[in-house]
Amino acid sequence: MTKDVITVLYDDFETLDVFGPVEVLGTLADRFNIIFTSQNGAIITSTQKVPVSTIPFGVPDARSYVLLIPGGVGTRQLVKDREYIDALRRLAENAEFILTVCTGSILLSKTGLLDGKQATSNKRVFAWTGMESPAVNWIKKARWVKAGNIYTSSGVSAGIDMALGFVADQFGRGTALQVARTIEYEWHEDPTWDPFAGLYG
Amino acid sequence: MTKDVITVLYDDFETLDVFGPVEVLGTLADRFNIIFTSQNGAIITSTQKVPVSTIPFGVPDARSYVLLIPGGVGTRQLVKDREYIDALRRLAENAEFILTVCTGSILLSKTGLLDGKQATSNKRVFAWTGMESPAVNWIKKARWVKAGNIYTSSGVSAGIDMALGFVADQFGRGTALQVARTIEYEWHEDPTWDPFAGLYG
Repeated sequence: MTKDVITVLYDDFETLDVFGPVEVLGTLADRFNIIFTSQNGAIITSTQKVPVSTIPFGVPDARSYVLLIPGGVGTRQLVKDREYIDALRRLAENAEFILTVCTGSILLSKTGLLDGKQATSNKRVFAWTGMESPAVNWIKKARWVKAGNIYTSSGVSAGIDMALGFVADQFGRGTALQVARTIEYEWHEDPTWDPFAGLYG
Repeated sequence: MTKDVITVLYDDFETLDVFGPVEVLGTLADRFNIIFTSQNGAIITSTQKVPVSTIPFGVPDARSYVLLIPGGVGTRQLVKDREYIDALRRLAENAEFILTVCTGSILLSKTGLLDGKQATSNKRVFAWTGMESPAVNWIKKARWVKAGNIYTSSGVSAGIDMALGFVADQFGRGTALQVARTIEYEWHEDPTWDPFAGLYG
């Protein structure tokens, strides 16, 4: 049986934050079924102009699911939107696993679900993490961080490495390597690999 | 002035073939404007279930543009579709640059525009290239190949490296490195780097 992956889109999401992990998980078509949602259901457009057709994220049904939260410029507004954060919290509380990419972790942190947990985010705007959510234990040098059922990754392309790490945790390293080969991707399988952490002060 | 990037979608395209290069080029918003098209204009769905809203690709207007052709399972039918290939040829003949990812090069090869030129493709199905288009000089070990104004890349994630190579050729290596850093991507900037060429016989 496949597991649903509920992808939460909003205008001005970062393209690869979504479609890197979607490529990895969607390639395992017998394991995952990818669903594209947004708060109201509409054509949602990424910062790089990709128009994606979405359905509204409502109250999730009884099936277990993975929640995928991308980052992007759009998070700047959403972190201040109480109604949005409340809806996201309901989705996140019921998820079996949560994966975030880039500033998607900052968005998730506003729900309180990361309080007291380790997490990471984009390195170029890393100073923003502590300002928004000081109760999170933000890890600067990490490609991705696993804290229980929550995986947070570094910027943009890091989502691909994290998704492969998630696949390895679920189905073994061999499956992750097989997916990486299929998409001709050189997986950085060490979650502490992070040459970008040192670039910004 | 921005240059249009006309992205040619079809059902069962491979997700990252499109959105890797779109991330790279779309991040340079002052240089490129990404447009999503398909033969008839519709919601087009990738193999990994991404529903993208597209407009019909008609006769291109006078502006110069970059044509981006992804690969994917959908190419298996399209290589036999004379009407589709004719429409693709008209688009390709008028493009200033053509970028293909994965089996997108096999689709392009059916137009005849790659005859006598060097090109590459996905390594897992590489035997298919010569069967479809023996007049092309297919290069097995290459991350991407540049032949005049045509760039062809290896499988799926190779499109990211090729797009950065295209950016370097257009605007200099510094710009490509800057984009790579922004998306926290370790660019394989040597087009002959290809650890996947040796995996399949």
